[in-house]
Amino acid sequence: MALHPFDSVKDYEIRAASKAVKDAHPASDDVHFVQIDRLDPPKKDMIRYLDAEHSGLPVPEIPRVLYLYYWTKGSTFNKALVNVTMGHVITKQELPKGVVGPILPDDMVEMEEFCLKHPRVQEEIAKLKLPQGYAVRTDPWIYATDDPNEKRPLLQFFMYVAAANGHSESNHYSLPLKFSPVFEMFTKKFERMDYLPGGYDEKTVPTQPWQQVPAVEYYPGINGVEQTRVVKPLYIDQPEGPSYTVKGELIEWQGWRFRVSTNCREGFAIYDVSFKGRSCFYRMSLSEMTVPYGDPRKPYHRKQAFDLGDCGFGSFANSLALGCDCLGTISYLDGMGIHGNGEPFVIPNTVCLHEQDDGILYKHVNYRTNNAVIARKREFVVQTIATVANYEYVINFKFANDGSINVETRATGILSTMPIDENVTVPWGTVVGPNVMAAYHQHILSFRFDPAVDGHMNTVVYDDTVKMPRDPVLNPYGIGFVEQRNIVEKPGYVEQAPLEHRTYKIINENVVNPVSKGPVGFRVEMPARQMLLADPDSFNAKRAQFATQQLWVTKYHDNELYAAGEFTNQSQADSGVGVWAKRDENVRNDDVVVWATLGFTHIPRVEDFPVMPVEVHNINLCPFNMFDKNPALDLPQSTQSFNKSKLYDSKTVEAKPCCKNNL
Amino acid sequence: MALHPFDSVKDYEIRAASKAVKDAHPASDDVHFVQIDRLDPPKKDMIRYLDAEHSGLPVPEIPRVLYLYYWTKGSTFNKALVNVTMGHVITKQELPKGVVGPILPDDMVEMEEFCLKHPRVQEEIAKLKLPQGYAVRTDPWIYATDDPNEKRPLLQFFMYVAAANGHSESNHYSLPLKFSPVFEMFTKKFERMDYLPGGYDEKTVPTQPWQQVPAVEYYPGINGVEQTRVVKPLYIDQPEGPSYTVKGELIEWQGWRFRVSTNCREGFAIYDVSFKGRSCFYRMSLSEMTVPYGDPRKPYHRKQAFDLGDCGFGSFANSLALGCDCLGTISYLDGMGIHGNGEPFVIPNTVCLHEQDDGILYKHVNYRTNNAVIARKREFVVQTIATVANYEYVINFKFANDGSINVETRATGILSTMPIDENVTVPWGTVVGPNVMAAYHQHILSFRFDPAVDGHMNTVVYDDTVKMPRDPVLNPYGIGFVEQRNIVEKPGYVEQAPLEHRTYKIINENVVNPVSKGPVGFRVEMPARQMLLADPDSFNAKRAQFATQQLWVTKYHDNELYAAGEFTNQSQADSGVGVWAKRDENVRNDDVVVWATLGFTHIPRVEDFPVMPVEVHNINLCPFNMFDKNPALDLPQSTQSFNKSKLYDSKTVEAKPCCKNNL
Repeated sequence: MALHPFDSVKDYEIRAASKAVKDAHPASDDVHFVQIDRLDPPKKDMIRYLDAEHSGLPVPEIPRVLYLYYWTKGSTFNKALVNVTMGHVITKQELPKGVVGPILPDDMVEMEEFCLKHPRVQEEIAKLKLPQGYAVRTDPWIYATDDPNEKRPLLQFFMYVAAANGHSESNHYSLPLKFSPVFEMFTKKFERMDYLPGGYDEKTVPTQPWQQVPAVEYYPGINGVEQTRVVKPLYIDQPEGPSYTVKGELIEWQGWRFRVSTNCREGFAIYDVSFKGRSCFYRMSLSEMTVPYGDPRKPYHRKQAFDLGDCGFGSFANSLALGCDCLGTISYLDGMGIHGNGEPFVIPNTVCLHEQDDGILYKHVNYRTNNAVIARKREFVVQTIATVANYEYVINFKFANDGSINVETRATGILSTMPIDENVTVPWGTVVGPNVMAAYHQHILSFRFDPAVDGHMNTVVYDDTVKMPRDPVLNPYGIGFVEQRNIVEKPGYVEQAPLEHRTYKIINENVVNPVSKGPVGFRVEMPARQMLLADPDSFNAKRAQFATQQLWVTKYHDNELYAAGEFTNQSQADSGVGVWAKRDENVRNDDVVVWATLGFTHIPRVEDFPVMPVEVHNINLCPFNMFDKNPALDLPQSTQSFNKSKLYDSKTVEAKPCCKNNL
Repeated sequence: MALHPFDSVKDYEIRAASKAVKDAHPASDDVHFVQIDRLDPPKKDMIRYLDAEHSGLPVPEIPRVLYLYYWTKGSTFNKALVNVTMGHVITKQELPKGVVGPILPDDMVEMEEFCLKHPRVQEEIAKLKLPQGYAVRTDPWIYATDDPNEKRPLLQFFMYVAAANGHSESNHYSLPLKFSPVFEMFTKKFERMDYLPGGYDEKTVPTQPWQQVPAVEYYPGINGVEQTRVVKPLYIDQPEGPSYTVKGELIEWQGWRFRVSTNCREGFAIYDVSFKGRSCFYRMSLSEMTVPYGDPRKPYHRKQAFDLGDCGFGSFANSLALGCDCLGTISYLDGMGIHGNGEPFVIPNTVCLHEQDDGILYKHVNYRTNNAVIARKREFVVQTIATVANYEYVINFKFANDGSINVETRATGILSTMPIDENVTVPWGTVVGPNVMAAYHQHILSFRFDPAVDGHMNTVVYDDTVKMPRDPVLNPYGIGFVEQRNIVEKPGYVEQAPLEHRTYKIINENVVNPVSKGPVGFRVEMPARQMLLADPDSFNAKRAQFATQQLWVTKYHDNELYAAGEFTNQSQADSGVGVWAKRDENVRNDDVVVWATLGFTHIPRVEDFPVMPVEVHNINLCPFNMFDKNPALDLPQSTQSFNKSKLYDSKTVEAKPCCKNNL
């Protein structure tokens, strides 16, 4: 069967593309790939394709194009586009010095091993005079930016002690050290040894013998915690199978129809989303995340990760496992990784698909008759989990049976820690264990929603709810309030205004709802959150303009997918929405893109260590005056004969068999 | 077995108390009860009791006291307190004219029938010249307030047409009429006929023949919707039973221990809450909810419900049914209702108790070894659902296995509607069907949290996250940020400041966390929301001061439980936190109460009609530096052998049997 243009990249495509690029370079260029994936086709072609597909007509052929990022001679960063349908290189170019692409996981591991063996690092380790049973580990960190003249790809290594007699699962994040070497990538040149402060100010001291303190371990068996909690099993049983179908990457469930395509940067993107035959979105994905830390002291100012641009959420995705990462009847989609030589490998099960119950969707009891209608909310969950060194991020797109979508982010994993001396506290972090501090930080995510609400010509509006002025005739009691609509005409951002109940909507001004007499639309419900705290003239802010405002609107252009720009590693400035939102273009009744910023400032608590209970944050989307009534009236009633719950008989009064109704 | 002082009221207690009150009045007083329930014992007595109980020592005897609201001679409202342990009336008093107690459901139904038969109403109905197959229905509404001199208990009746050939489940809210009679309660005196506007202004016209339009029905069989959605069954199977125990009203689950006591006003209250032996809360409940409407026109200015104070969430609670209102292995608690003669009756199953899975609680994958730790989040849910005429409210207190509590409100049911003429739209409402408009409105709930974080002496603080000033030495890159603590010393409110990441905490300044070196505490995480929109000098605002700010702090005093005060029906002013928060008292390191305001402005969408998919809103509570590490490390790992998920084989690659680890 022919591939769909939105289908995930195939291993043979990666092989063909990397071969084409290698063939186009002399062997002495020493081509070293760091990322290869499929490029989205031009939208104008895809619209023709999707129109035909939806109508059951023959679809036009659209060539599959891959992008490839690679280094040559260990010092020049390149990008190529390869048409793998036709088998030719479309373009290849050297990128300017200072553009540093994403890090390949293989390279990270290699540099980590190299660092630990380096004489200068060994010399420092020797000064620790570590007791028997302790080892040193290191986490390489993307170097971030503090010098506009720095063009070399650098890595900063944070160093830790692993206790538990060298147990492989010992939590080294509990025992951070106070020296931090910097290396150049590829050349592996030792650049510098940084020293980390341990007190309440910026002062550092030369490496001293390590002061032995107990580690706070998370791993069962070495964490000193008896796993005594008695939890009775809870099974999700779907004896007739799930309500969804998966054909390749095309999913149909409860009126929803969309494609889930895995990729190495975003983890996955969801394409061509419709509910009950009504087009909703062309493409949806997590676009970028930045994680700046608030410890002001050198070299912590460089702790500003861009977890998609620097690393890749798909490249660092977990292989999800049956019965561990979700419950029920589960399907999986695979991701694809590469080695430096351009050889692909499957990362199995990076996305899991399942449905779950989410309580009551609607209920009404007629108090006159005691008859009830009640239906249950069910969700179809598209889940991926990425491990970015210490942290885990769980991204769930949850489609509900009433046409709404809940975009859920769960942050878990291990806090990124700093050393701190005994009896010291600091105002920018929490002491979470002996001599270990977790600095305050922010997680700021950009979700990219490319809408297609009843077509591609959409408008973004924001509505405030405002008091009516007192009026002796119309508002004599001073209790009236109305909606005030604001239309986004030009690219830019919309500020938060939760106390005015500001809500964002993507409407189609060309389609009128016959009931409400207004335009059809989709509501984007964002929680009001603190945005980026860094100074506007700091590199943190310049590199992540998207993180300074809650909602951005741009006009659609091909290949504008990533909120902070294509290349974030050691970037000097945001080359994404920070640039695109400044263009003087029309975005009203046009092909628009919405970038929704979900931020959470994380003030660690002791309970977040050594492994953190999830922080859960949501964006909710729902049809707003799109249907002519509740589109979930066709659901079956929630009855005991259908749900088969069990009475746990803690009292003598019997539960009635079901809610009374006449059905 | 002796009753616990927190146990719900018993039927024999109600009988004894109502008899004692009737015996204390001459028969000619015609005692008519509207609410009878248990009063909380004085806290100083309860602290002694609970200390003894927790230590396994003999507990002091605490008399059970009931309060009774009743009318005498159909015109005087009274309150009595009866000691049912000793069998005597403690006090009884006539309340001032103008104090109107809650409405008894029986009385509501009786007045409804009376209204429909009244000649003046029949006369108006006749003018409608209703076709065959249509009937008239009415919903009585609490009259609210617009005149300080009005002392009589009044009811306003909104009138509707029921279609579907008089089918009992026809959605009359779809066909509102334009006249609205007002009656005095008890005397049943016809007061006045109000007329409702149908255009875009306040003008009204005399009753005309009814213009026939189709109703938007919700009930299966008459709603014109085929129930064609194929939903495969999804069972929650707990073959070894649930992980919780219920002894009377004492619940233990996953380290949590608390009592759930049903009552007629709040639905339920949760008492004496501890997690892993650490005291957290003395009492938690929904305290009040006000629902003001934004249509400025007379008589809609009087649509301001107080769903707890005016009616009672327990009195109007649904009898929950196995397999309908929640899934799994379920226990129930009963509520208690009364008739006007003081005779009690059981409202079965007003509270359901069950546990549910809520996805991943924590996960970390060691990228060096690919070993994972993963535990699942499980919740214990205490749920009640109240039907207040058209609307349903689902209140869930969800206790999680990591010590956190999610207080979830789901609003569903049917929108309260107004008539609107064809082709008219208004800026304060959404046209949701033919000739029917749903006005914008707000739901503003007050949750009362009476904390006992490691004891009863607690302090409320609010912490803002703020930028550090640039400093060439300490903050040279302008990226630092710190927490700024503010301590609530006196009763009052705390304003919202989401953009400063303001978070509220209840701390115990007398107990220091050995790890963080700071006080132990519980965090109250509130979503930033628009508060009451009505003018500060409107009755809406005066009656619901609590609804004007997000978080209130008062000093504990016995019998101060209800945010808008004890009597809300036709109240002129808030006699609750609006008064208590103005007292000049100490609240630092004292017995404090936190009142958390959860508001949502509801701009109806067409999809909310004829029955509304849930709007879900949450307050999250969690231990903050209370434990010395993640208190959920004692959970079993999430494994396939435990969870028994099923692979839905949509691809050939096999899912691995489980996440790799060494266990």
